[in-house]
Amino acid sequence: MKLILTLLVALALTLPSVFAAPKPNIIIIFCDDLGYGDLGSYGSPVIRTPHLDRMAAEGLRFTDFYSAAEVCTPSRAALLTGRYPIRSGMCGNRRVLFPNSKGGLPAAELTIAESLKGAGYATAHVGKWHLGLYEGSRPLDQGFERTFGLHYSNDMDARADLPKGSVGSPTPPHDGWNVALLRDGKVLEQPADQTTLTKRYTDEVVNFIGEKKGAPFFIYLAHTFPHVPMFASPAFKGKSHAGIYGDAVEELDWSVGEVLAALRKNGVAENTLVFFTSDNGPWLIMGDQGGSAGLLREGKGSTWEGGMRVPGIAWMPGRIKPGVTSELAHMMDLLPTALSLAGTPPPKDVTLDGTDLAPLLFESKPLTARPFFYYRGDQLFAARLGEWKAHFQTQDGYGRPQAERHDPPLLFHLGRDASEKRNVAAQHPDVLARIAEAVNAHKAAIVPGPPQLQ
Amino acid sequence: MKLILTLLVALALTLPSVFAAPKPNIIIIFCDDLGYGDLGSYGSPVIRTPHLDRMAAEGLRFTDFYSAAEVCTPSRAALLTGRYPIRSGMCGNRRVLFPNSKGGLPAAELTIAESLKGAGYATAHVGKWHLGLYEGSRPLDQGFERTFGLHYSNDMDARADLPKGSVGSPTPPHDGWNVALLRDGKVLEQPADQTTLTKRYTDEVVNFIGEKKGAPFFIYLAHTFPHVPMFASPAFKGKSHAGIYGDAVEELDWSVGEVLAALRKNGVAENTLVFFTSDNGPWLIMGDQGGSAGLLREGKGSTWEGGMRVPGIAWMPGRIKPGVTSELAHMMDLLPTALSLAGTPPPKDVTLDGTDLAPLLFESKPLTARPFFYYRGDQLFAARLGEWKAHFQTQDGYGRPQAERHDPPLLFHLGRDASEKRNVAAQHPDVLARIAEAVNAHKAAIVPGPPQLQ
Repeated sequence: MKLILTLLVALALTLPSVFAAPKPNIIIIFCDDLGYGDLGSYGSPVIRTPHLDRMAAEGLRFTDFYSAAEVCTPSRAALLTGRYPIRSGMCGNRRVLFPNSKGGLPAAELTIAESLKGAGYATAHVGKWHLGLYEGSRPLDQGFERTFGLHYSNDMDARADLPKGSVGSPTPPHDGWNVALLRDGKVLEQPADQTTLTKRYTDEVVNFIGEKKGAPFFIYLAHTFPHVPMFASPAFKGKSHAGIYGDAVEELDWSVGEVLAALRKNGVAENTLVFFTSDNGPWLIMGDQGGSAGLLREGKGSTWEGGMRVPGIAWMPGRIKPGVTSELAHMMDLLPTALSLAGTPPPKDVTLDGTDLAPLLFESKPLTARPFFYYRGDQLFAARLGEWKAHFQTQDGYGRPQAERHDPPLLFHLGRDASEKRNVAAQHPDVLARIAEAVNAHKAAIVPGPPQLQ
Repeated sequence: MKLILTLLVALALTLPSVFAAPKPNIIIIFCDDLGYGDLGSYGSPVIRTPHLDRMAAEGLRFTDFYSAAEVCTPSRAALLTGRYPIRSGMCGNRRVLFPNSKGGLPAAELTIAESLKGAGYATAHVGKWHLGLYEGSRPLDQGFERTFGLHYSNDMDARADLPKGSVGSPTPPHDGWNVALLRDGKVLEQPADQTTLTKRYTDEVVNFIGEKKGAPFFIYLAHTFPHVPMFASPAFKGKSHAGIYGDAVEELDWSVGEVLAALRKNGVAENTLVFFTSDNGPWLIMGDQGGSAGLLREGKGSTWEGGMRVPGIAWMPGRIKPGVTSELAHMMDLLPTALSLAGTPPPKDVTLDGTDLAPLLFESKPLTARPFFYYRGDQLFAARLGEWKAHFQTQDGYGRPQAERHDPPLLFHLGRDASEKRNVAAQHPDVLARIAEAVNAHKAAIVPGPPQLQ
């Protein structure tokens, strides 16, 4: 008996470290308006992103990763709740929250931060929020123990007398914006010096990692850039081939390098899942400051692929097998994945729209096939099933006036025609019928939440 | 003295192996109509190219590598001679050689193969030729000791009663083309079974490597695909996400893997420079069989970037430092580079348009800045200087009727606007003046050769 016990103890001591490790840390790095074609590993010929390229080479790069919305506020709501934004009411005709908006992410919505905090995680929000200014909706109300960043986009709170064209100018005036930088709800600096935002966000995250390395932690790093107006610190300004947009993205790439280096330095890289993505496609009407969706059609504000398909890179060295996957995944998958890693069951009485990516990430198992739905505001514009995508309505770009309805829908095969150029609806009525069926099932299961963006 | 001699001998024996090695082998892998956006490492979301991605990760990937022409025949002439095709007369209104063309690459032109043969290399051409059928122009006349492949494109020699649309059909009829497969000028098979061409070309190259591993060798592997009509062998047909086009490119990727594996297996990988590229951009009007130029504008047949900027990957493990370069380089650089590796001086009395890439490849030294000139047929359509590109004429796609002249020229900044969307000529007259100066100098130095494509 004593021998058996001794053997069992010896066995326990030699079990793989994963079982002995603390719960995995989770970091979501979220860019603002970064396009599908803006990273070296996604084919940018001009923007140099060696740190993200290395992250992609060491991790799993998604070719078909989607935002749940074509603009900022609904996308962030979907990321944090794991639900289509229509369920939380965080979408509508005004598209995003504005400084005068009264609504926000309802207190009743359960965020990744709330769930992980309940599971013993230290939680921090760093960067842009854009999910509401009032009680119930703020970072500290939604599960974050700390918050450092901006209320919303960096072009909101613009000075009233700003010259026309300043937003997308390659040399935006430093004093043209009045947006405040806050720590834990209190204004630190107004206007925020935007040239050092990326650096300060990065320092904040690096310090948090050093401080919390012993406890499981969750960090939501929501960068301000590359949203217009574009700024970069002196170390990056004027250094890229791609103007100020390239400078800003190359500084984000540096930031990713710093975060991963901090994980390595603190000995927690192998126990931290880092997921890098963007809130929506590039804001093309901003010209030189508008980024690129690569070969995908259109950008931010539209439900063409360029508006919602975004870079997606998962990294956890030694746990995630390096590679590229063409599995369809989306940001609503991150909540179930995070809960799975934390060993926390999904919340009861909450309808989630995502799926746990852990089997794909850690065991290279294919996901169960599922449709994906493209909303513009609270309207369902398109649906994807396998390689097929049907558009029921289309509208180019951000802020353009009219949607066009399509009956029969437009139909594209995203494998043979990734740029959505050749409508083949007439040749595939059977595919349209299958998509219609999936749409009907989806609509029947949607209960819209009280609209927050009035 | 004896001691000194002994020491010298000892020193000689410990010198790095590169000095003791035989002259480096050179392989050029040349695809037909492969687009800038068709490889994973260049951002394709649908075509899986793990072997080329590995080649790129182990080698130097060019973001700004150019073909010297927008279509097939002039591009091949430029590759083999290191000269703009207008110098050899291998361009003009008919664009390419046709089966009834009497012209071809003039015997007086000096090819890479001729120079390397003179330097003791074993030389082989495998795949498409398309540089002339008659004495003086054929592979065996132009420095190749062996040749195995097709006279020209796989859609030439089409059966007269071929149904309309067959060329770009996703299921091209096997018996619709009558093109012959030849070995050393003699017909082996007519019509060639196109489903196995990629495999047979690959076997030919692998066998040649095994046979010639002791001697320095030069192989020009000019694949038939992904030119329409598209075929793939049973192992690849129907396997990609991107239809028959994706199947064909994934088989080319397999082929690259086989060639590199053969070099490793025969112990000559570290002494072989492999350069992978394409003859021009994707043939967009072919629809599902037309490939993608990624974020670049237009494709084959045009002097927009998508017509002439192509993938370019250099590989020589242990000699080339892995990385990505944004240096402007082009296929006319391959002849001077090959001669430099072979230790052979450039030919006297021949004006070359390329530069030796060896300092960039092996020492990461930047190239001397130089302009690049975009011809369509024998007309100069555009010029690039640094990041700036001016269009004097434009014409979309292949075979469309009219060129449009621009005075003042259109001007684009390829760093901030890689997709050539925003003409900024009015803001930069100084840049236009500098480009005009470079164009005048270029024109003054061009002596057109006797036209071959009448």
